[in-house]
Amino acid sequence: MTAETKKPAAQTENTMWGGRYTTGPAEIMEKINASIDFDKRMYAQDIGGSKAHCRMLMATGIITRADGEKILAGLDQILGEIEAGQFVFKRALEDIHMNVEARLTEIIGPAAGRLHTARSRNDQVALDVRLWVRDAVDRADVQLADLQAALVERAEEYAEAVMPGFTHLQTAQPVTFGHHLMAYVEMIARDRSRFQDARRRMNESPLGAAALAGTSFPIDRDMTAKDLGFDRPMANSLDAVADRDFALDYLAAASILATHLSRLAEEIVIWCSAQFRFVRLSDAFSTGSSIMPQKRNPDAAELVRGKSGRVIGALNTLLIVMKGLPMTYGKDMQEDKEPVFMVRDTLDLCISAMTGMVRDLTADVPSMRASTLPGFATATDLADWLVQSLDIPFREAHHITGSIVKLAETKGCDISELTLAQMHSVEPRITQDVFERLGIDNSVRSRISYGGTAPDQVRAQAKLWKERLS
Amino acid sequence: MTAETKKPAAQTENTMWGGRYTTGPAEIMEKINASIDFDKRMYAQDIGGSKAHCRMLMATGIITRADGEKILAGLDQILGEIEAGQFVFKRALEDIHMNVEARLTEIIGPAAGRLHTARSRNDQVALDVRLWVRDAVDRADVQLADLQAALVERAEEYAEAVMPGFTHLQTAQPVTFGHHLMAYVEMIARDRSRFQDARRRMNESPLGAAALAGTSFPIDRDMTAKDLGFDRPMANSLDAVADRDFALDYLAAASILATHLSRLAEEIVIWCSAQFRFVRLSDAFSTGSSIMPQKRNPDAAELVRGKSGRVIGALNTLLIVMKGLPMTYGKDMQEDKEPVFMVRDTLDLCISAMTGMVRDLTADVPSMRASTLPGFATATDLADWLVQSLDIPFREAHHITGSIVKLAETKGCDISELTLAQMHSVEPRITQDVFERLGIDNSVRSRISYGGTAPDQVRAQAKLWKERLS
Amino acid sequence: MTAETKKPAAQTENTMWGGRYTTGPAEIMEKINASIDFDKRMYAQDIGGSKAHCRMLMATGIITRADGEKILAGLDQILGEIEAGQFVFKRALEDIHMNVEARLTEIIGPAAGRLHTARSRNDQVALDVRLWVRDAVDRADVQLADLQAALVERAEEYAEAVMPGFTHLQTAQPVTFGHHLMAYVEMIARDRSRFQDARRRMNESPLGAAALAGTSFPIDRDMTAKDLGFDRPMANSLDAVADRDFALDYLAAASILATHLSRLAEEIVIWCSAQFRFVRLSDAFSTGSSIMPQKRNPDAAELVRGKSGRVIGALNTLLIVMKGLPMTYGKDMQEDKEPVFMVRDTLDLCISAMTGMVRDLTADVPSMRASTLPGFATATDLADWLVQSLDIPFREAHHITGSIVKLAETKGCDISELTLAQMHSVEPRITQDVFERLGIDNSVRSRISYGGTAPDQVRAQAKLWKERLS
Amino acid sequence: MTAETKKPAAQTENTMWGGRYTTGPAEIMEKINASIDFDKRMYAQDIGGSKAHCRMLMATGIITRADGEKILAGLDQILGEIEAGQFVFKRALEDIHMNVEARLTEIIGPAAGRLHTARSRNDQVALDVRLWVRDAVDRADVQLADLQAALVERAEEYAEAVMPGFTHLQTAQPVTFGHHLMAYVEMIARDRSRFQDARRRMNESPLGAAALAGTSFPIDRDMTAKDLGFDRPMANSLDAVADRDFALDYLAAASILATHLSRLAEEIVIWCSAQFRFVRLSDAFSTGSSIMPQKRNPDAAELVRGKSGRVIGALNTLLIVMKGLPMTYGKDMQEDKEPVFMVRDTLDLCISAMTGMVRDLTADVPSMRASTLPGFATATDLADWLVQSLDIPFREAHHITGSIVKLAETKGCDISELTLAQMHSVEPRITQDVFERLGIDNSVRSRISYGGTAPDQVRAQAKLWKERLS
Repeated sequence: MTAETKKPAAQTENTMWGGRYTTGPAEIMEKINASIDFDKRMYAQDIGGSKAHCRMLMATGIITRADGEKILAGLDQILGEIEAGQFVFKRALEDIHMNVEARLTEIIGPAAGRLHTARSRNDQVALDVRLWVRDAVDRADVQLADLQAALVERAEEYAEAVMPGFTHLQTAQPVTFGHHLMAYVEMIARDRSRFQDARRRMNESPLGAAALAGTSFPIDRDMTAKDLGFDRPMANSLDAVADRDFALDYLAAASILATHLSRLAEEIVIWCSAQFRFVRLSDAFSTGSSIMPQKRNPDAAELVRGKSGRVIGALNTLLIVMKGLPMTYGKDMQEDKEPVFMVRDTLDLCISAMTGMVRDLTADVPSMRASTLPGFATATDLADWLVQSLDIPFREAHHITGSIVKLAETKGCDISELTLAQMHSVEPRITQDVFERLGIDNSVRSRISYGGTAPDQVRAQAKLWKERLS
Repeated sequence: MTAETKKPAAQTENTMWGGRYTTGPAEIMEKINASIDFDKRMYAQDIGGSKAHCRMLMATGIITRADGEKILAGLDQILGEIEAGQFVFKRALEDIHMNVEARLTEIIGPAAGRLHTARSRNDQVALDVRLWVRDAVDRADVQLADLQAALVERAEEYAEAVMPGFTHLQTAQPVTFGHHLMAYVEMIARDRSRFQDARRRMNESPLGAAALAGTSFPIDRDMTAKDLGFDRPMANSLDAVADRDFALDYLAAASILATHLSRLAEEIVIWCSAQFRFVRLSDAFSTGSSIMPQKRNPDAAELVRGKSGRVIGALNTLLIVMKGLPMTYGKDMQEDKEPVFMVRDTLDLCISAMTGMVRDLTADVPSMRASTLPGFATATDLADWLVQSLDIPFREAHHITGSIVKLAETKGCDISELTLAQMHSVEPRITQDVFERLGIDNSVRSRISYGGTAPDQVRAQAKLWKERLS
Repeated sequence: MTAETKKPAAQTENTMWGGRYTTGPAEIMEKINASIDFDKRMYAQDIGGSKAHCRMLMATGIITRADGEKILAGLDQILGEIEAGQFVFKRALEDIHMNVEARLTEIIGPAAGRLHTARSRNDQVALDVRLWVRDAVDRADVQLADLQAALVERAEEYAEAVMPGFTHLQTAQPVTFGHHLMAYVEMIARDRSRFQDARRRMNESPLGAAALAGTSFPIDRDMTAKDLGFDRPMANSLDAVADRDFALDYLAAASILATHLSRLAEEIVIWCSAQFRFVRLSDAFSTGSSIMPQKRNPDAAELVRGKSGRVIGALNTLLIVMKGLPMTYGKDMQEDKEPVFMVRDTLDLCISAMTGMVRDLTADVPSMRASTLPGFATATDLADWLVQSLDIPFREAHHITGSIVKLAETKGCDISELTLAQMHSVEPRITQDVFERLGIDNSVRSRISYGGTAPDQVRAQAKLWKERLS
Repeated sequence: MTAETKKPAAQTENTMWGGRYTTGPAEIMEKINASIDFDKRMYAQDIGGSKAHCRMLMATGIITRADGEKILAGLDQILGEIEAGQFVFKRALEDIHMNVEARLTEIIGPAAGRLHTARSRNDQVALDVRLWVRDAVDRADVQLADLQAALVERAEEYAEAVMPGFTHLQTAQPVTFGHHLMAYVEMIARDRSRFQDARRRMNESPLGAAALAGTSFPIDRDMTAKDLGFDRPMANSLDAVADRDFALDYLAAASILATHLSRLAEEIVIWCSAQFRFVRLSDAFSTGSSIMPQKRNPDAAELVRGKSGRVIGALNTLLIVMKGLPMTYGKDMQEDKEPVFMVRDTLDLCISAMTGMVRDLTADVPSMRASTLPGFATATDLADWLVQSLDIPFREAHHITGSIVKLAETKGCDISELTLAQMHSVEPRITQDVFERLGIDNSVRSRISYGGTAPDQVRAQAKLWKERLS
């Protein structure tokens, strides 16, 4: 995919590469080598990059204004043809760059041959992929903001809905469903920050690196960089051609995001089970059985969970491709595109599906609440009360609580249902006040530390996020 | 993708699933859920499996002969339509199974409704993928045998062509290029055995597991198993539905194969460099530059090397998908197909390309030989001679050799160019015979141990493999 | 790690490698290069391999009987010292091979210098790792057989215990817990067969490949192969030195096994939740809270689930290490040991822990049964009855069933609780016999197809496995 | 590893957890569950975190100043004991947290029981790992800056040393070795920026999340956050306990870094080959053979290359661990530590070894230069000259160049060695000036575009980086 290092092709199709090769490429070679089937997705980036390059060539006087205007018009026409579905991509022309250039020659004639001045397919493809990934990052950001908005809405709605707070899928302490959803808002915030970091780091222009060594033409790399929205040109031409960090950064951010989505997806699958019955997805987000009405398969959640596999697999793929590659460009690097394209499509689907599910789901608040009751979920509240009210060291308070729980277990009741006298049999200093702390609503309301599960805390966080997101 | 647990779809398109759903599926749901875009590749397996099922239903009297014949004829017609490119796949029908069944109903009417008796989409899809992967395994075996044949041919041709035997990319001892190529024949032999093991392990029929529990119909699972070339039916219906080991086995074998191919590909890239000049690929397997004639980019080798990334990535993908999945079928498992399909296509390309390169390449025998000369590559021969002829313990022989090499280094010559007198200054017992062992041809010829690099050994191995492969 | 290509070391510690190096190795070099900290785990394999090599050298007359006997006695003494914890491993001697050889020289003097005749560290280390991995395979097989035995025992015990058969974690049809456990017996059977295949494929001896080219000594590779329990010597000396497939085969088998264990582990975690209450682990296999008695954290199950990550990670690691490595030995290949050692330890823990949990768990049979009831889990039984008794095509039977289920839903009862008259309002041909098929026990008992969930089928499979395992 | 959800242990060892368990934990359980063998590496973070928590408890009046002072002194004593190697870690106490607390109780008595007020092992371990990873990030940054410094030094030294600029390991255009080295300075700069982004994102305090719900104690999370150098407390207590993004961020940055190091390592291995002879490593960074003096195995480079496998494997490991985990803490998450610890040690070794190699290596400038000559490496210079001097469109200039190269090939000379008359046979407009552009030094000097290979550009970049790094 390098300008000076071309695969031979039939004369009629690709006359640019001269006749150095006496035999045509083997069929297998065309199949393994051609990238047009997938790299045509970068047509907008390729044309946009060429236009910026052309404007710079005009501005610096490397080509004439007349030639430049013809090139720009021709490129616009090609863009129109592609977007109208009228462009015929040819595999013999191998990739998007040659397909566009060949068409440009048809449209405007020899002036087309001036576009590639001071450029190489090496910096051209590096530019195209980078622009494409940057667009993918921007898209992910918008979609993730929408997912956050959906989570915040539902969190506000369920700011007081008590559910079990789990560790090890065992009830640890009562929390609210709103608080639980807000945890994902935080995770997604980190995902967005990760994509933003990736964007900032990739936002340097490789254009002007030419084949790999830079060029002797008096190009203005700052101009093209600025034109294309980059912060600056890359500082080393070999690196510009050899680097695929931007794709790795994108895939790494996508992989961590995918684990977050898989966690929420797993929870939705579990919550939708008949045994949990915490939430219900509507027909729009579950599939069922014509003969088993209760069966509501959370297919979308399972697919989101499962698709984490392909995202992580794609990251792994590109890391392996890049492992041990000597500089600068090796054809191995053509393997960067398909993983990136696939992940972008996968994120599109998964974020949308998750956003849809979050907006769609109905929490079964009574069922969640009922699930919180057994298991002495407020035992830690009792321990904390002993520390706070009786100044008993925490570890001792823990011991006393254990004994009181054991007593309640023997009596077959919750600790909040013991009498004060019964409690006194374990610890005589306990006062009537203790009962104000026991019970799941009291427990939840008491967790007022910053970031805690108290409904006011949850609402405050939700409010903050609504402001940030608007 | 389960028969009784269906995604809702427009009434007009998919009337089989009744009208339990009041709202249609969200558009995102259709996009994330439908598998027809990729699972249509399994049409032959789906139809073949249905025909075997139908024949069994007829034989056991579960359906009538008349209905059965209609179904079989209808399925054959559909197969013809698909292969003629006349079949219209509908996304609203979600997958290959429903597309085929819906068309069958159009063709033969209500009798089509009897085909799915004692079957579920769960065992149907498990069957289809398994049959597809088995075909992929068989194809890999044929292609790998061809690669071995190519390697053996070239190995025989170059059985005496001396090249450096490398460790750490440093010359260790002289070997022959034929010997080097035969090492890959052994690696590929293990790959084939790995695919064969996978085939044997997967060669059990899931058909008859129905949804997951088996069925009350008096089916004959042995009959369908035999009909479809399986060794036996799977022994547990839950396992039949939940298992994707066969795909993992295929991907694991493919991954190890991919590392082998990547090693040979790396060697070809290095050998093609101007600095090594060990081999030359023809125009058919390299791409060049119209203005730099010596530049012969080994693109195919680089792509084979790089594509190891996606194969290993695919294995990783499916292992992650299956990690932590509760039984039996989860929609996550729909993620098994695309990695398997992609890897099958990738192996196709990579094995073909490698076979083509092996057949195409020309070794630069003088250049290889010249590369072997410097570096005292026969020092170990001298040490071995000292042990064999003078009965000096190996470690001491090593010390003596070190001193002689140092002497040669000082004199600026190879050890074979030292005089006997010069050698005597280090070890007086050395005799004239030593010179028969020094020199790279003598060295290579002396390695007569089984599997060694002596040309006769190489030819014997090549002969053996030719017999095995014919 | 090659015999002829050694890291320099202090004269006093390692006098074997002569004084070619004027400066000592950098400290960082010693840290990155020395493998003794981990490869000492292979001491038994190293000594066993050396003894076999020595016996062959004696038998072929390459060394004298007297020297050979001294070497064998010395090696036995070293083995004893290591196993008694009296051996001092020295990092300056870099690896297990040199540590053993240096000590042998101390014990028996110059004759020790004859052991390495016709051998190199390259084939020695290839042999050691291979023997070690073979032992790991054998150990896995024994442990997995024990896990199967545990599963079979419990399956027999619970052959009639009804539980929901899940797809998508939604009840699909009733099955028995015994049947569910037997599914894992099948998975583990495939795992064992995978390890056996790996064993068979790796069971060829690399010994005699020497540095890489074979040797001029009249060695008998068949003898050492047989002595060490190998089926035959490897057929290509370069391959013998460059191959790490055996480790990859082991890691691939381990990875697939790890996904199986992770699935059962996930189920145990879910089953232990208060919402499911399907099983209970004793104190021995759960951790709890001193103050929350119901909290029984299934830590061991979670660790088994989580440790699938490191096993798959290890497979990935070694595939990446081997990717693109030119032949034959590269120092990169030293990275094979730690992943293999870690995985062996991890499998040890995980299989044992899982076997312990399977033996330890108590199923809450009433809770499982109660969980099966809602959701019209026997709807498919009704559909099958309509086909079998009334000869209604399957798809039509499905429709009728859907309507009857809808009726029951409206009435707020199970389909088995409808009156015949009520059923007749949907389908008049239904007879009283239908009620013999409805109800979860009848459903389960009816699945008599081979591999189905009928208790007799489950018992038959369990009996078969008991015989196989004894 | 949660405070309220403890593994039972022998009374004598761990009296804190009461006696709810009648049977002791199985031996296997202790082996799989205990983390003290590896988590003791976090002792400094654990004690530092406890001290900050204690100071906050004092400041807010939750504990008395007297108790607080005792605790702080006790913790300091324990830190001293551990660093002096006098601390006895007990496996029965399971982890670093309980080991420290148990010892604190021995030293200061019951007051120790107040330290854990308003804290849980859940937020404690989340804090410890986060602090540890932050330290690892800081260490990587320092080491990477040193690697950059080494690269910049050598780049300045070799700013004019001409070498082939490779694509596909084929010479494309001449560049300088300094320029090549500066490309790695840019890559490492991105690595550092990636670690910095990770640091910034992880720099929020989980302390105060308690078990998962927050706490009713009037804690000051801002105070502990500030005390420990965090930017702020985390905003959601569930997220604080469930998050391992910080470890994933670290591992992702490490993986991309590892591919960069593997690329340079691969180049060093290739450059050190006898066929390339571009660089030479001293004895300190290569290993050799006592009898083959030219053999200089670049072991350290190979290990750096190979160790990319384990780093990527570790990222993969933790992504798999986190995939599909329901909130909040699951014991699976204990699997975060070992990959992170291992990667930190691996980076330590690999960055140091690479820095050492860069400082150590000697470029063979004449050999590099000689390698650049063949292959018409300046053909693109001729094409550019045609465009610049004769205003020929780039594509036509390319064609003319191809013909001139063909002519030179026929004549058996370089294009710079053709006469003007010979050139005129292809393109009559060429003038004498053209010869000023041909020749590799002229070529290199002409690439003056920003980031190009012209020595002045390289020196300018090196100067800039020296300033940045000082």
